[in-house]
Amino acid sequence: MIDFRSDNTGRAAPEILDALVRANSGTALGYGADEWTARLQERFGELFETRVRVFPVATGTAANALSLAAISPPWGLVYCSEMAHINTSEANAAGFFGGGLKLVPIAGDHGRISAEALAQTLAGIQPGAIHRGQPAAVNLTQASDLGAVYSLDDIRAVSDIAKARGLRVHMDGARFANALARLQCSPAEMSWRSGVDILSFGATKNGGALCDAIVVFKPELADGLAMQLRRAGQVWSKMRFAAAQLLAYVEDGLWLRLAQASNAAAARIAAGIAGLAGVRPIAPVEANELFLEMASEVIDALEGGGFQFYRRSATLARFVCRFDVTEAEADALVAALRRHCAAPAKAAE
Amino acid sequence: MIDFRSDNTGRAAPEILDALVRANSGTALGYGADEWTARLQERFGELFETRVRVFPVATGTAANALSLAAISPPWGLVYCSEMAHINTSEANAAGFFGGGLKLVPIAGDHGRISAEALAQTLAGIQPGAIHRGQPAAVNLTQASDLGAVYSLDDIRAVSDIAKARGLRVHMDGARFANALARLQCSPAEMSWRSGVDILSFGATKNGGALCDAIVVFKPELADGLAMQLRRAGQVWSKMRFAAAQLLAYVEDGLWLRLAQASNAAAARIAAGIAGLAGVRPIAPVEANELFLEMASEVIDALEGGGFQFYRRSATLARFVCRFDVTEAEADALVAALRRHCAAPAKAAE
Amino acid sequence: MIDFRSDNTGRAAPEILDALVRANSGTALGYGADEWTARLQERFGELFETRVRVFPVATGTAANALSLAAISPPWGLVYCSEMAHINTSEANAAGFFGGGLKLVPIAGDHGRISAEALAQTLAGIQPGAIHRGQPAAVNLTQASDLGAVYSLDDIRAVSDIAKARGLRVHMDGARFANALARLQCSPAEMSWRSGVDILSFGATKNGGALCDAIVVFKPELADGLAMQLRRAGQVWSKMRFAAAQLLAYVEDGLWLRLAQASNAAAARIAAGIAGLAGVRPIAPVEANELFLEMASEVIDALEGGGFQFYRRSATLARFVCRFDVTEAEADALVAALRRHCAAPAKAAE
Amino acid sequence: MIDFRSDNTGRAAPEILDALVRANSGTALGYGADEWTARLQERFGELFETRVRVFPVATGTAANALSLAAISPPWGLVYCSEMAHINTSEANAAGFFGGGLKLVPIAGDHGRISAEALAQTLAGIQPGAIHRGQPAAVNLTQASDLGAVYSLDDIRAVSDIAKARGLRVHMDGARFANALARLQCSPAEMSWRSGVDILSFGATKNGGALCDAIVVFKPELADGLAMQLRRAGQVWSKMRFAAAQLLAYVEDGLWLRLAQASNAAAARIAAGIAGLAGVRPIAPVEANELFLEMASEVIDALEGGGFQFYRRSATLARFVCRFDVTEAEADALVAALRRHCAAPAKAAE
Repeated sequence: MIDFRSDNTGRAAPEILDALVRANSGTALGYGADEWTARLQERFGELFETRVRVFPVATGTAANALSLAAISPPWGLVYCSEMAHINTSEANAAGFFGGGLKLVPIAGDHGRISAEALAQTLAGIQPGAIHRGQPAAVNLTQASDLGAVYSLDDIRAVSDIAKARGLRVHMDGARFANALARLQCSPAEMSWRSGVDILSFGATKNGGALCDAIVVFKPELADGLAMQLRRAGQVWSKMRFAAAQLLAYVEDGLWLRLAQASNAAAARIAAGIAGLAGVRPIAPVEANELFLEMASEVIDALEGGGFQFYRRSATLARFVCRFDVTEAEADALVAALRRHCAAPAKAAE
Repeated sequence: MIDFRSDNTGRAAPEILDALVRANSGTALGYGADEWTARLQERFGELFETRVRVFPVATGTAANALSLAAISPPWGLVYCSEMAHINTSEANAAGFFGGGLKLVPIAGDHGRISAEALAQTLAGIQPGAIHRGQPAAVNLTQASDLGAVYSLDDIRAVSDIAKARGLRVHMDGARFANALARLQCSPAEMSWRSGVDILSFGATKNGGALCDAIVVFKPELADGLAMQLRRAGQVWSKMRFAAAQLLAYVEDGLWLRLAQASNAAAARIAAGIAGLAGVRPIAPVEANELFLEMASEVIDALEGGGFQFYRRSATLARFVCRFDVTEAEADALVAALRRHCAAPAKAAE
Repeated sequence: MIDFRSDNTGRAAPEILDALVRANSGTALGYGADEWTARLQERFGELFETRVRVFPVATGTAANALSLAAISPPWGLVYCSEMAHINTSEANAAGFFGGGLKLVPIAGDHGRISAEALAQTLAGIQPGAIHRGQPAAVNLTQASDLGAVYSLDDIRAVSDIAKARGLRVHMDGARFANALARLQCSPAEMSWRSGVDILSFGATKNGGALCDAIVVFKPELADGLAMQLRRAGQVWSKMRFAAAQLLAYVEDGLWLRLAQASNAAAARIAAGIAGLAGVRPIAPVEANELFLEMASEVIDALEGGGFQFYRRSATLARFVCRFDVTEAEADALVAALRRHCAAPAKAAE
Repeated sequence: MIDFRSDNTGRAAPEILDALVRANSGTALGYGADEWTARLQERFGELFETRVRVFPVATGTAANALSLAAISPPWGLVYCSEMAHINTSEANAAGFFGGGLKLVPIAGDHGRISAEALAQTLAGIQPGAIHRGQPAAVNLTQASDLGAVYSLDDIRAVSDIAKARGLRVHMDGARFANALARLQCSPAEMSWRSGVDILSFGATKNGGALCDAIVVFKPELADGLAMQLRRAGQVWSKMRFAAAQLLAYVEDGLWLRLAQASNAAAARIAAGIAGLAGVRPIAPVEANELFLEMASEVIDALEGGGFQFYRRSATLARFVCRFDVTEAEADALVAALRRHCAAPAKAAE
């Protein structure tokens, strides 16, 4: 079986678990008052070239929902892509933690929101009108849930419109490293320098094990968030074991190497099937995911042939490359696609 | 420095981290659909001698608050000790997750609630009266937040009263293993056989690293809880790394050995100061904690002499024994207490 | 000025205020334990031909949001029309009272949801999948927010699909009387006999003053709802003044006479402009509202000519007929529309 | 039967219903955008000698809970008397609307909180500690739930301590007029000039019918509160009928005359039983309530003798005087008490 199901089905990078094990010596104060967590603040400050507050959390859902709750009042409207993970896959955690805040889909291509569509929506809402709720924040998923990446200009275009209306900007960076590896820019450029106020910093999907983080660029948001994290049950008493993972994740560029590897595998597959009749990527392959449209017989044949992946509809399949997928596995998928597309009818029989 | 600050300042048991590292091979489905989590269900079923649902969670606060939210409607009254961790130390997480449920303190000795006091409170509430809220659940902290342990009869007395009124029973077992080691009974006897419906199963304070668990004895509670855990951001996508920790924790009696060690250290200290004028335990030392009342000069002297612990008031200090505290460390505390109590006035100068 | 802005800009029916004043004698127990509220239960039981629980509430928003919270868990998905009042105009009160439940728009014509579209959406959701939330309830707005009315068959079609999947059915009857007057069926037929479990019973828009009601057809929902209403601040201590209004509202068919009057006015306008080039109703005029598309110059001319109404876009205007709108006012609007449509270009100058 | 059960069992003052009826002419914009509500802002501005925002709401519970939610974050601790209505009688509405905020009882006499006890509690909480929640606000019930009244110095003492720690001050003025009539000071003195930030302005218990109000003295609180009121279902579309009631309530000093009447009746009873052996008021009778301790046989005899009141325990009874209680009714109670106390043993037979 060759597994393209998700980047959360994979292993953790050994360096990360090694660091966790190494943290297991001596005693340390609980709830983040330890040296590892202190170092994490400093290290991320360097990484993002500004003072930040970093809060390790158990999951990306916690990072997203608590970030949004920190930047929106309960009566807030939070704009996002129809396909955003927060909208489709987190059981409305944002609505729950946010006291009933509401997610509002904004149009755009490839799982991204369009700055123009956002502007148009905002133009239709009178400030002070109380019946609909009040625009409060914008969510960008970087990389998007269709595997596309916002350029720095894209991010800036959205955040400029948001800021002009007093909205805050959240980036769901579950695949932050994949997008960063694609854009080859700095973490600062892809976040606060482009208008991002608060970031869900994903590690799990890119070789992490048991934690992600919230990175806060606006200091005034941090103290309230710290309280909410505590009562959300997201503050480990033995926090050092989480902080150590995140420190190892960014040590010596590990995170970028991992993301480059999974991106490269996706690009290799995309290149291998470029121009192949019968397979159509529905979005540009810019990170580590491919969403391929093909005849349902072809998808059946792949499933029958030992490939694991998620079927989004009869004719749409998602393939995710993990950091540890091999070139041979990528090539096997390409070969199978070429084989089945050459003779789809036969494959179905 | 000798550290008696908390059982969460300590290391994890190496066996637990080893298991986490061993789980890092191959791919596995996310969000608990993996083999480790499946095995966890079975293993805990054996352990508790009944079918259970086990949900790994990041923290004890999450375990407690989500358990209470599962057994109380938003208008519910949840009875607990004044000193219960849920009442004093979790920033009202129960009220948050429970949609505004309310904790109501019940009297009792040594951090426990008294069955009689509970009965009396319930007798004063008319069923159907809507102004005050409705009695919904009872919380028992085992071991208590003053280091005492409910006997099986104690638990049964409380749960009988609760059940007679239709209330559900939650046990906060942050120190479940310590209490179990004390009572030398079975996990089943100390939980569902004594009327417990849902259990916060603590591991972190007893040699765990990054997870605790909720154990559900009433099947009808499990599906809703699973949904709430998902939106609470408490369902890891790489769940195997959590399940593996919990499996290792109970493997070959590890958890009980760890608890016996910390209990024994506490008992050693208690024995060492028994009868010592000037030091008074305010609760029986039945688990791994000592709450000692003494002259503030004595406490000052201990602090000055290299001991770390929490001062609850000018004249009350808490000492917690970790699984890896040594006999020498315990004896050093005894010796210091004996020394300072012999000449407290001097110590203060 | 002739006012077609809303049915909430109007007067209350004098009979209703008379009843309120008549209730002002003697003492009566608070919070609904009075004779008026008891009689209300009986009276609505006769009206709906079944045992019901009736809870007077201050507003339609309270009725809707608390009804939905009563039939959906916090992780529930509640299906409704994109244009439903609960989705567009109540500041996500349903999400707030429902602990983060989520409204999901379903396609359909004229502000109604289509049974087929609902079936298709439900077919795409696997039971037990935890990421998206769980289907919990369906909302029908009767009459719809575009002034159309569900037939009994329409309601039944939707509720059959809902029931087959275990979903509960809520009807937002802010204009229940208008729809009833249109269908000329019984209250029972338009509610529980067609599968409705809980009803927001509107009075305010149809000649009421300060209260609407929730009518519960499923007894098991009532006790919990009573508690939530209490803590929602929706249980008046001097409840008799609310119950008396609702009793007067349905006394001797007052409510239907009021609705017939406003419906007739809307029908009169619709008939008056039938076939008029330049004015197009975007939905059938089946209750007391007209949504008319016309050149923006025509709308400008109406505004300039002393008509009050809401402009939904440059070319869409909403006209609402109150129970006390006169035939002369309706005819004036028809005449103005005829005049402006005959020479729209001129009107704009 | 002579009714001393509650001030909410009584009639409304006819002037208030007259005003409601008079408001029933012409059309008016909904949701508070009408002339009556505009006039209400002005009128209360004069009354309180400062710019205020006034929000009519359906009930005192709504006023209290939404006020507290406006001045406390979800992780806030709100200090109040053990006997405060918000703590004993509103089904934890404050916890619900406040997203899990927590009420913390503070000692004091006669249903009031003591400034010293508040100071002591606050001194024990380290700023920034995240485990317990953060002090956010103080609630004063004026008159208290035992019928006592805070003097202006009392209020100032509490609010000074609150302000020094950055806490906001809420006054539950369900019996604001009764306290005002007692103190014979200005509304401004008893509220913002003494440090009150937000006020639940009660009318219902003092001759009102269907509305109370929130009065906001801190402008920065008003816009968010307006949004929460909308989604709480507390903004009537036909708001004029509520605003008209409140305007009539304060017109020409009506509210004070009503409160003087009920206070006088209570004082008359208190005077009538002063020194009577066998009856002991447990708090000074400073408003319109008496809490009388006496032998259970005496209470039984009163119940048997046609008096209606609430029995708080076997030996404690509450008597509430409405604005329309007569001197004869007050005297009848005095006479009965004198009679039964003279021969309590006999009365019990």
